[in-house]
Amino acid sequence: MTLYMIGLGLWDEKDISVKGLEAVRRCDKLFFEAYTSKLGVSVDKLEGFYGKRIIVADRSMVETQTNKILSPAKNSNVAFLVVGDVFSATTHVDLYLRAKKEGVDVIVINNASILNSIGVVGLELYKYGRTTSIPFHNKHVITPYDVVKQNKAQKLHTLLLLDIDAEHNSYMTIREAIEYLLGVEDKRKEGVFTRATRCVGVARLGSENPEIIYGTADELLQLDFGEPLHTLIIPSELHFIEEEALNQWRADKRKIRGES
Amino acid sequence: MTLYMIGLGLWDEKDISVKGLEAVRRCDKLFFEAYTSKLGVSVDKLEGFYGKRIIVADRSMVETQTNKILSPAKNSNVAFLVVGDVFSATTHVDLYLRAKKEGVDVIVINNASILNSIGVVGLELYKYGRTTSIPFHNKHVITPYDVVKQNKAQKLHTLLLLDIDAEHNSYMTIREAIEYLLGVEDKRKEGVFTRATRCVGVARLGSENPEIIYGTADELLQLDFGEPLHTLIIPSELHFIEEEALNQWRADKRKIRGES
Repeated sequence: MTLYMIGLGLWDEKDISVKGLEAVRRCDKLFFEAYTSKLGVSVDKLEGFYGKRIIVADRSMVETQTNKILSPAKNSNVAFLVVGDVFSATTHVDLYLRAKKEGVDVIVINNASILNSIGVVGLELYKYGRTTSIPFHNKHVITPYDVVKQNKAQKLHTLLLLDIDAEHNSYMTIREAIEYLLGVEDKRKEGVFTRATRCVGVARLGSENPEIIYGTADELLQLDFGEPLHTLIIPSELHFIEEEALNQWRADKRKIRGES
Repeated sequence: MTLYMIGLGLWDEKDISVKGLEAVRRCDKLFFEAYTSKLGVSVDKLEGFYGKRIIVADRSMVETQTNKILSPAKNSNVAFLVVGDVFSATTHVDLYLRAKKEGVDVIVINNASILNSIGVVGLELYKYGRTTSIPFHNKHVITPYDVVKQNKAQKLHTLLLLDIDAEHNSYMTIREAIEYLLGVEDKRKEGVFTRATRCVGVARLGSENPEIIYGTADELLQLDFGEPLHTLIIPSELHFIEEEALNQWRADKRKIRGES
């Protein structure tokens, strides 16, 4: 039978595609990968909408107990549900390859991910350089700083994804990301990311009320972006339409929502 | 009322999200932007599925006669349908900004685009550098060659989008893209793209039978990838999982489908 690898999009139960929903309805077992990202709604909400039970798959099931997913896919239709799009994480490529190796048919049903949905901010998607992520345990990590530096040298924007620890319900905030980058700047002193660096904080992208704020690192540090997920963009040189787009999100046009 | 900007995904009428479909059903007028990309199905198919008429919007309507779209959105719900995701083209950011300036509410409903769906090939999405595109009129164009060169220097993969001229039903093929790059190489002689360069040709991504083939430029030149859209990837250094993933698409494992 078939393993359907289905992207759920970014926010709620209705972001799945019509094709994805039809596939879910054909499946006997649904696995939900819930450790590399996070929807804005609970598993209950998905179950209610699908009219089916969901098995939440943690990292060990997906990476080391792959057979729990692949064995049933040999005799029945199985869905592997992923927040955003299907191949955002390398481990999903691995699952795909194993399935094919074991003779399981695989059908991929794509969806929006942060990599394209970020387009709403107004920076041209083709002017982003390499994407990077900031891990929680980052005391000795400098990669994100160097990626921003390299991208800037090529006049490219940088999208920074912020770490999540779903097991402990912990999600890196924009403030933590900025503090981390300022910390690296303190050591490196190359002027790649200072308190005056303009950046864009984005929270809950794909929801009905995403928060998008453009300002200096210093301004963004004073804001509470609220519920996860958070993302940070460091723009490089701007085309005039990009500049006009960013100005609609200017920090000084917005009320500061929190003090914490 | 509201302007719904809705991504349709990559292939057929069922790639729209459930949320997108619900929005379409609430709309009095549907505009379909059909000049920057192409679905695998006809407008008739979309109309049949939605149960509504669609107005096909060409470049001049979207870029210079914006009021044809924004005026009705002031008193009724209007959908602006885009192949792939909403903000793949700069002109859509412009439409978004104008709508907001004129006091029209805008709701964005995202979907898959080539930028994330390409993940199925097996190259890590975070290891792509800047994306570039090859235009039809490219006699004096060298940007794509330089982008590949810069990305390679940073050990990053390159996604090359190939031009389309929807008005004349003309879509650049993988062969034309390779011939173009070899032509620039002939002049520049920097060894960035030779007949021995390994690349991945991808056709009809998002459909049930996409064609994905990994081989040298020389091998890919001999293949007929069939119907549009075509895309070309030039991988840089490979992680071992990436290598394993690419090997499943090796040209020498596949039958050559055409001679033309």
